[in-house]
Amino acid sequence: MATQRILDFLATRRPSGPCLVVDLDVIEDNYKAFERALPSAKIYYAVKANPAPEILRMLAGLGSSFDTASVAEIEMALDAGASADRISYGNTIKKERDVARAFEMGIRLFAVDCVEEVEKIARAAPGSRVFCRVLADGEGAEWPLSRKFGCEPKMAVDVLRHAHKLGIEAYGVSFHVGSQQCDLDAWDKALADAKGVFEALEKEGIVLKLVNMGGGFPTRYLKDVPTAQAYGEAIFASLSRHFGNRLPETIIEPGRGMVGNAGVIKSEVVLISKKADNDNVRWVYLDIGKFGGLAETMDEAIRYPIATPHDGDETAPCILAGPTCDSADVMYEKTPYPLPLSLTIGDEVLIEGTGAYTTTYSAVAFNGFEPLRAYVI
Amino acid sequence: MATQRILDFLATRRPSGPCLVVDLDVIEDNYKAFERALPSAKIYYAVKANPAPEILRMLAGLGSSFDTASVAEIEMALDAGASADRISYGNTIKKERDVARAFEMGIRLFAVDCVEEVEKIARAAPGSRVFCRVLADGEGAEWPLSRKFGCEPKMAVDVLRHAHKLGIEAYGVSFHVGSQQCDLDAWDKALADAKGVFEALEKEGIVLKLVNMGGGFPTRYLKDVPTAQAYGEAIFASLSRHFGNRLPETIIEPGRGMVGNAGVIKSEVVLISKKADNDNVRWVYLDIGKFGGLAETMDEAIRYPIATPHDGDETAPCILAGPTCDSADVMYEKTPYPLPLSLTIGDEVLIEGTGAYTTTYSAVAFNGFEPLRAYVI
Repeated sequence: MATQRILDFLATRRPSGPCLVVDLDVIEDNYKAFERALPSAKIYYAVKANPAPEILRMLAGLGSSFDTASVAEIEMALDAGASADRISYGNTIKKERDVARAFEMGIRLFAVDCVEEVEKIARAAPGSRVFCRVLADGEGAEWPLSRKFGCEPKMAVDVLRHAHKLGIEAYGVSFHVGSQQCDLDAWDKALADAKGVFEALEKEGIVLKLVNMGGGFPTRYLKDVPTAQAYGEAIFASLSRHFGNRLPETIIEPGRGMVGNAGVIKSEVVLISKKADNDNVRWVYLDIGKFGGLAETMDEAIRYPIATPHDGDETAPCILAGPTCDSADVMYEKTPYPLPLSLTIGDEVLIEGTGAYTTTYSAVAFNGFEPLRAYVI
Repeated sequence: MATQRILDFLATRRPSGPCLVVDLDVIEDNYKAFERALPSAKIYYAVKANPAPEILRMLAGLGSSFDTASVAEIEMALDAGASADRISYGNTIKKERDVARAFEMGIRLFAVDCVEEVEKIARAAPGSRVFCRVLADGEGAEWPLSRKFGCEPKMAVDVLRHAHKLGIEAYGVSFHVGSQQCDLDAWDKALADAKGVFEALEKEGIVLKLVNMGGGFPTRYLKDVPTAQAYGEAIFASLSRHFGNRLPETIIEPGRGMVGNAGVIKSEVVLISKKADNDNVRWVYLDIGKFGGLAETMDEAIRYPIATPHDGDETAPCILAGPTCDSADVMYEKTPYPLPLSLTIGDEVLIEGTGAYTTTYSAVAFNGFEPLRAYVI
């Protein structure tokens, strides 16, 4: 999955220490694939997936909008050249003073999932549009979401009615089908729920306009995933089924699906050892781990492809761990990772599909190790 | 657990945003308590627990030595005024070029747990002393360690023999009984194993001198923990039982036990909401979470005491979550946390016992949120 441009960069620049290299061409291709797959949907790139300024600038240039999680991310999107009307404040958990700062910067589209949040928006961002996030069950997702964001659809009706009453625009509904969602039908049930909220409010004379279909679009790790085109077709079919010829405005918020496969982490094998003479499984320690950018290996949730200089040689199972003095800094142990028996201390390995959710997850200085460096090329 | 000095600082300075405040007086008391409890042991403060320069300087002044995990931590300890002979490179996972850099800086004491690491030391730090870490079962620890560090005692004999053969000094044995270890007997079995390694090598004419008894000393969270004095007595009794009147040099490496109870995180309630009308459990969202410094709430491992302005009022169970758009950023859900029903959005809460393993675990900029700020007073 490492592109020739990434391989050339690593071969020429030979950066020392672990680093992420991101290929902008791949992101451009991904953006265009989403555009083609869902031509009627607006693309709001989920900035949190990878907020590198080069990425934001390129996407802004391509016409992308931006889903942001904080005032700092709003500033990054503005700095990248996006106008405020292309930015949503998509975090359902906001301090009222942050809502006010976003409003001052021109942001008029906010996510909510409870009346308390609606009241903050009414006070600090009068006249803005809100969409209410509803819970989705996340079935079929490799990483189903907790109930942290969203409310039951029945409550969403109350939340949006409250917004309307307070003079802000009850604009729509959002949901998130779960991260790395490979079930093309996952959007269908959520769209049915969304349609239910539209109908309940329409009876009261409140006409919603937007369905924010969130993210969840996967990146390819070890297994193949459906194409953007396949997602587009399935989602459009569901939209038509539930909304007929009165299609709402739609938004998608790809993050992982936009940048995941554009990045590769270069890492070094620091140590290979056993704990006892008769151990079957080797421990392989890399110079990057859970606290250096691979946080998504938590509970072994995401299993990254790893390329070594000895691919093709006979393999044996390894426990893969990071370089810190933290006993929890182990990436793969329950399901050991097969790596070549010829792998040697000092070898460089490429951890693929690491363009999303790596650099910013990285700890400030845990154990004195620097945060993950990134090169966007 | 917040000291008057911390409360005064917060009341006077009113720092905005989440922050950690550390009281140096508490750390000084802890240091002296360890000194009194184990007068024959040298104290190597585990820098990774909290490497704030003010803490390192004070401990260096009190005569502490330092257990470091990386070249950067060695530099911090040197900068704080510790001489190189008071610093150990305690990480068993080291790049050979980092061993060489440590050696150049004067470091002569290294941890190993396999022959591969011994060979790096022999090449890059000739003539140095090594201690070999043996696995301990961690029974009784609130956070038992994985098998990431250490080897079986039988293999430790081979590792230290190999060191001797390569001309570096086979200096001793280390172990770690597990984090937040509240069983006073936990050290006993590990000391028996250590003694076994001493004896096996003595038969071959290799005389070990050091037992590094590691960390594991707890800090008080919600439950009382034994005093340093109680640990000291239990450990000294075990040492005498196994080593008789030929007591080895000993080292302890308190981290959490040295700084945990010296720090308090001030945080703000961003949102309190429900997901459905009939929910029994409220969701309480703070402006700090798993990625902002509370990484040790992973798997709800550590349950911090939380003080609110409404303590004493009737409480009800809450799910406690952080402010990011990450669904995994939930601190306590399996076991909800009882908080006052009168708790309100905007309230400040104090998360106590957070002096260790918070600031440096904090993500660089996840979701655009700044890493945790710290004030050491």
